[in-house]
Amino acid sequence: MAGRLPEGAAIIGQSGGPTAVINQSLVGVIEGLKGFPSVKKIFGMRHGVDGLIKGLPLVDLGGISSGDLDKLAKTPSAYLGSSRNKPTEADGPKIFDACKTHDIRYFFYIGGNDSSDTCRIVSELCQKTGYEMRCFHVPKTVDNDLMMNDHTPGFGSAARFVAMAFMADDRDNASLPGIKINVVMGRNAGFLTAASSLARQRPSDGPHLIYLPEVPFDTDKFIEDVKGVVGKYGRCQIAVSEGIKDKEGTDIGAKLIAGGQTDAHGNAQLSGSGALGDMLSNLIKEKFKSPSGKPPRVRADTLGYLQRCWPDCSPVDATEARAVGNFAAKEAMSGYPDGSIAIQRLSNHPYKVEKRLVKLSDVAAKTRHMPPEFIAPNGHDVTDRFVEYCKPLVGELPVFFKPE
Amino acid sequence: MAGRLPEGAAIIGQSGGPTAVINQSLVGVIEGLKGFPSVKKIFGMRHGVDGLIKGLPLVDLGGISSGDLDKLAKTPSAYLGSSRNKPTEADGPKIFDACKTHDIRYFFYIGGNDSSDTCRIVSELCQKTGYEMRCFHVPKTVDNDLMMNDHTPGFGSAARFVAMAFMADDRDNASLPGIKINVVMGRNAGFLTAASSLARQRPSDGPHLIYLPEVPFDTDKFIEDVKGVVGKYGRCQIAVSEGIKDKEGTDIGAKLIAGGQTDAHGNAQLSGSGALGDMLSNLIKEKFKSPSGKPPRVRADTLGYLQRCWPDCSPVDATEARAVGNFAAKEAMSGYPDGSIAIQRLSNHPYKVEKRLVKLSDVAAKTRHMPPEFIAPNGHDVTDRFVEYCKPLVGELPVFFKPE
Repeated sequence: MAGRLPEGAAIIGQSGGPTAVINQSLVGVIEGLKGFPSVKKIFGMRHGVDGLIKGLPLVDLGGISSGDLDKLAKTPSAYLGSSRNKPTEADGPKIFDACKTHDIRYFFYIGGNDSSDTCRIVSELCQKTGYEMRCFHVPKTVDNDLMMNDHTPGFGSAARFVAMAFMADDRDNASLPGIKINVVMGRNAGFLTAASSLARQRPSDGPHLIYLPEVPFDTDKFIEDVKGVVGKYGRCQIAVSEGIKDKEGTDIGAKLIAGGQTDAHGNAQLSGSGALGDMLSNLIKEKFKSPSGKPPRVRADTLGYLQRCWPDCSPVDATEARAVGNFAAKEAMSGYPDGSIAIQRLSNHPYKVEKRLVKLSDVAAKTRHMPPEFIAPNGHDVTDRFVEYCKPLVGELPVFFKPE
Repeated sequence: MAGRLPEGAAIIGQSGGPTAVINQSLVGVIEGLKGFPSVKKIFGMRHGVDGLIKGLPLVDLGGISSGDLDKLAKTPSAYLGSSRNKPTEADGPKIFDACKTHDIRYFFYIGGNDSSDTCRIVSELCQKTGYEMRCFHVPKTVDNDLMMNDHTPGFGSAARFVAMAFMADDRDNASLPGIKINVVMGRNAGFLTAASSLARQRPSDGPHLIYLPEVPFDTDKFIEDVKGVVGKYGRCQIAVSEGIKDKEGTDIGAKLIAGGQTDAHGNAQLSGSGALGDMLSNLIKEKFKSPSGKPPRVRADTLGYLQRCWPDCSPVDATEARAVGNFAAKEAMSGYPDGSIAIQRLSNHPYKVEKRLVKLSDVAAKTRHMPPEFIAPNGHDVTDRFVEYCKPLVGELPVFFKPE
């Protein structure tokens, strides 16, 4: 595809929950745009379209040296600042005014499904008003829940953190045996919780139970599951998604968070609280009678925001995050008007992917869930197929030396 | 010191909360004992003296290959299993019976101040009964609270995790500005919470407030402190020790943990719950009125057990943990009857330490606190002197690229 390219500035924004590699994508776009004469300037918007609407000063990204770009790429969380707000139709003219003022003709928005919807809205407003601006969504989310994608940049690094956390914590829980709950991020999709399964190197290793948002959570079954594992191994390590729901589909965690907050997308607060882990911990303390009559040692950790910002990235995730940004820039420079970049897997052995341009509307505001073939029939585990799928995404994991 | 060495087996145990480098010390003792003809066997006890009392089978440590010892050293948490129980006088004969059965003449116990007290009790029981057994305590604790020590193996790696966590989380909290509380381990000593200060690379970086167990926690002052920081930077990252106490000296966290458990040392459960962070988070949500009238974004994470088991160790900590184990073995082989190994710092530039043999009674069951020169006069920070002290212990930290 060729065609005339509009001349003007490019702008890049970051939106939604940041990741450890979201700045790789930012740098990927910057590097991809350099050297194209149609692109007169490369700007960054502060805190996504919020910053544009509020008239926050733009960031000059074109002037960052290549050495600093490398440092920037390795810095976790959104360099430009992020936003959880969603623009309304009324915000449209303000975004256009800002874009026109700065002569912006290329608009890149790095984010998840809410962010791709923002991108779609902006692109549609452009088309309605006849303002020629190319709009590209660059995928990012630790939740791994974007449609059309085999997986999403940000997920691999978060999955790496989760797998390492469960590996190390299982050793801790084997040292002082007890029941250990670790609550994992993921509002609607269980991919990140499922990644805890990569911590297993042999059958007795944790996590021994994995509870996903895709499987209705039943407290009686939960207690029975835990009893079974404790009877077998004398300890139990449990992965619980922050997004587990009861059989009516109600978020169990959100109900527990006192003064919990809702964002502009109507999402209730799930992270940044230990309430769900503590509730499950108390439930076990109440309901669980060990054979000795002694209450079991029960502890709950909520892995929290470190999952999305821990700086020891998955190398493949870092590379792919940079590459999708770069690809978005290249597609814009090839003359495409808008779209979202998707990663498709071509083969697993050897691991090989390709990037494709897909329609914004195919990704926008939709959620991909764990497919049935990744969920174990017992409802508290993942399948080997999921492990096969996830393993290439996290990089090499340490190998521990364990007692027989 | 020379003298006759008793002939027989050596036994090594691990006790108290595990660390990321406690197996380095285990391997250090094993390597230090090898080649001495007086040492006929090297055993490990499962779950500390508990395992001896219960008659759990011993672990043959002498037969582990040197390649596997290297893997073992890099594996976090207590390989042999740990224990939180403290032997009573009535347990003494059972410990001796087990030691006599296995002809044990060298007893090494890796742990913190409670564990060195266990070691002292065992050593005194030996002397009372005339059973010749050398008893050595090998220091370990992420709390860094052992007397006679400049710092303690395990602390550096935990401090590294805490510093990295605050660095990365501060970027996250700068992306989506709000008030972020991170609760850090440390029952009575604030060293680990204080290590969050290493995350700062420039004045606006978090943590902006640091609350230690050594300074009485006042909720009114806390709210004022947070308001001050939010006014200045538009966000606030807060380090809070799990062991903060009110002005009467009562643990604030322990009161909040429903069904909280007490160990054999009378220590109430502080870790493995998000209750303290959630309480402080709710307090801010209630009391804090931002200039816009909009409630601030408040999140709390409890860094949890990952602090003591995360596998990316501080290199200097790993080296020192191995070295203290080795030194204990060497001192035992030099004929000393008992003692604890202490690390003393000789100089900071260049960083240089030495190991010394100190009396068990000087370390046993005592707690070292943050000295006044490490605590900032404002009561919510540390001094530059603390940063100077702590920096060499954690290894190199990543350097992030940040907006102006």
